[in-house]
Amino acid sequence: MTTTVVDNIGLLVTNDPRLGDGPLGLRRDAAVVFEGEFIIAVGDAGLVADRRVDAEGRCVIPGFVDSHTHLVFAGDRSDEFAARMAGQPYAAGGIRVSVDATRAASDVELSRLTELRRAEARRAGITTVEIKSGYGLQSYHEARCLEVGRRFTEDTTFLGAHVVPPEFEGRADDYVHHVCTDMLQEARPHARWIDAFCEVGAFDVDQSRAVLAAGLAAGLGARLHANQLGHGPGVQLAVEMGCASADHCTYLSDDDIAALAASDTVATFLPATDFSTRQPYPDARRVIDAGAAVALATNCNPGSSYTTSMSFCIALAVRDMHMTPDEAILAATLGGARALRRDDVGAIAQGMRADLCVLDAPSYTHLVYRPGVPLIHRVVERGV
Amino acid sequence: MTTTVVDNIGLLVTNDPRLGDGPLGLRRDAAVVFEGEFIIAVGDAGLVADRRVDAEGRCVIPGFVDSHTHLVFAGDRSDEFAARMAGQPYAAGGIRVSVDATRAASDVELSRLTELRRAEARRAGITTVEIKSGYGLQSYHEARCLEVGRRFTEDTTFLGAHVVPPEFEGRADDYVHHVCTDMLQEARPHARWIDAFCEVGAFDVDQSRAVLAAGLAAGLGARLHANQLGHGPGVQLAVEMGCASADHCTYLSDDDIAALAASDTVATFLPATDFSTRQPYPDARRVIDAGAAVALATNCNPGSSYTTSMSFCIALAVRDMHMTPDEAILAATLGGARALRRDDVGAIAQGMRADLCVLDAPSYTHLVYRPGVPLIHRVVERGV
Repeated sequence: MTTTVVDNIGLLVTNDPRLGDGPLGLRRDAAVVFEGEFIIAVGDAGLVADRRVDAEGRCVIPGFVDSHTHLVFAGDRSDEFAARMAGQPYAAGGIRVSVDATRAASDVELSRLTELRRAEARRAGITTVEIKSGYGLQSYHEARCLEVGRRFTEDTTFLGAHVVPPEFEGRADDYVHHVCTDMLQEARPHARWIDAFCEVGAFDVDQSRAVLAAGLAAGLGARLHANQLGHGPGVQLAVEMGCASADHCTYLSDDDIAALAASDTVATFLPATDFSTRQPYPDARRVIDAGAAVALATNCNPGSSYTTSMSFCIALAVRDMHMTPDEAILAATLGGARALRRDDVGAIAQGMRADLCVLDAPSYTHLVYRPGVPLIHRVVERGV
Repeated sequence: MTTTVVDNIGLLVTNDPRLGDGPLGLRRDAAVVFEGEFIIAVGDAGLVADRRVDAEGRCVIPGFVDSHTHLVFAGDRSDEFAARMAGQPYAAGGIRVSVDATRAASDVELSRLTELRRAEARRAGITTVEIKSGYGLQSYHEARCLEVGRRFTEDTTFLGAHVVPPEFEGRADDYVHHVCTDMLQEARPHARWIDAFCEVGAFDVDQSRAVLAAGLAAGLGARLHANQLGHGPGVQLAVEMGCASADHCTYLSDDDIAALAASDTVATFLPATDFSTRQPYPDARRVIDAGAAVALATNCNPGSSYTTSMSFCIALAVRDMHMTPDEAILAATLGGARALRRDDVGAIAQGMRADLCVLDAPSYTHLVYRPGVPLIHRVVERGV
């Protein structure tokens, strides 16, 4: 098989402390060699391979691992967004607008839209992506959305418990039962994860627990939308159920943070959501200082965070969540991998997937220092 | 001369209320025809010309007018930025780091760096740019920086009064005298505007007044850095001296706002600076509601705002300064033109310069709705 070297890397972020300095495993004047989909060597500049890509002194980082997206949807909600910016508060109910449009879209259209967004995410440096269902909310449509998602990632998540659909208005418990039985059965072959939106206006703690328990019993891994719009029991439930990740974590009590720190559950922050819903930003500093694992993800979706820009999330995380640039880069790469319980992505080391971003900058700090500037110069995903 | 039509525009922002709906002069299914550098017709889709560009239903807006940048500099200050994000406050003194690097750079290097940044700004949709000196702070070097800037814009601004250089440490008044005499004389042929940094740590109100007065007497137009880091006399001075623009306006008293509203001085907001220095954002709502004219600009510079992304500024203006998307678009185009007292840019109408951006989106709202996503699909500047 042909080997490729990315050579003349001014600054390499490996995320492997054995390979370089500090938690980011930083190396100067480095090279990375890969063969097919996998990295076979990391070393000093000048390594030899069949094919050579010259990074010209630029900074190279692991590809971003975006552990929380809703890429499969149809329709537009820019009007709802504009109304919110004019003062209307965010509410989970807007999800139903996307549900109507998604159900109405043809398979071909839904695939095409998802492919466009996945391509945009790749241009933004995202080489691993999780994709949730949740705009179908009927057995057929949830399974269809997961099948579409599966074409783009192995990390698909069944989110039938996104919001109560119109057909079950006022009968949330009946809907939860439906999610846990028929819908789960149809979704199961196309999903790796189960998820629920545990929030006022969506599902309460008992309903969310029932959904996660059903998914776990069916062999799925668990993750949870928790504590987005206010304090609540979501984070504690995520820890109780052994979720890989509690996502949002905008409102955290000291007990929530202590529970996260004592668990394997990653706190996944979605700051572009807090930006787009004008919520306060989570205090990542407290969470990190307590010893909990953290991740950053885009939450790309049409209602509350229609962005594929992990760089934007990183800039917000540093400016408004008081993470250091090092912590933010780590959270957007290795943190995302942990949140997906993946050990093949999120770092640049022998045996890892050949996923990396060449930045149009001498340092990863520039992702924050140069906000809004598209600095992703080149993306390699699975060696291509 | 060859004529070109940009046809099949789904939504056109003309900024001319005579040409369409509302203050943005919105038209659906539109076309724009230009010949050489100038627009010769705005009408419904289907207009005919020698050459046709198909916008494929996209939104088209006037090119951004960036009325405040410092594009001519050498050196990097990402370390200072990282230190600031770790808690160190922003101070004007950091400017001297860029002064040392800029003085040390060759003419060729300085031109090359400026050209790269101007090209990056164009990719970000900026078709008119103002460029300040202020990293030379010696007669020869200020004139040299303005000469470089002049290659990229007619709107060059002499900012000898950026900060007191090391040679004049403790002798600010002597430096001001030097700026107002020898330095101004050398800078004058290469500049359209005079500017000063009226702020604690830079120049006080009397020093700033002396600089503006000298520039005005030499035939330059006046503009002023005012009220960036705290309340102060800058905005009142800008109005008193008939400045085209008071830039920053982060801290404004009721009297400042009343003075702006009663004047021809534009309040130019630089929210990427407030982002990168972790300052509060200005309350644009109060300023607009009082009836003052406003603009948005990037303030692209290596210390406090190293971005060329007007889209990022627009997103911040809506999210954090409570401007509507309409107001923000207007401020980044026609507002910038007013702040430069230009009547040939900032709108899409017959006789205006053929400067426009085709967005990869159906509406300009998407510049806020999709933060961080590079949505500038195509840029036309002076018809090219």
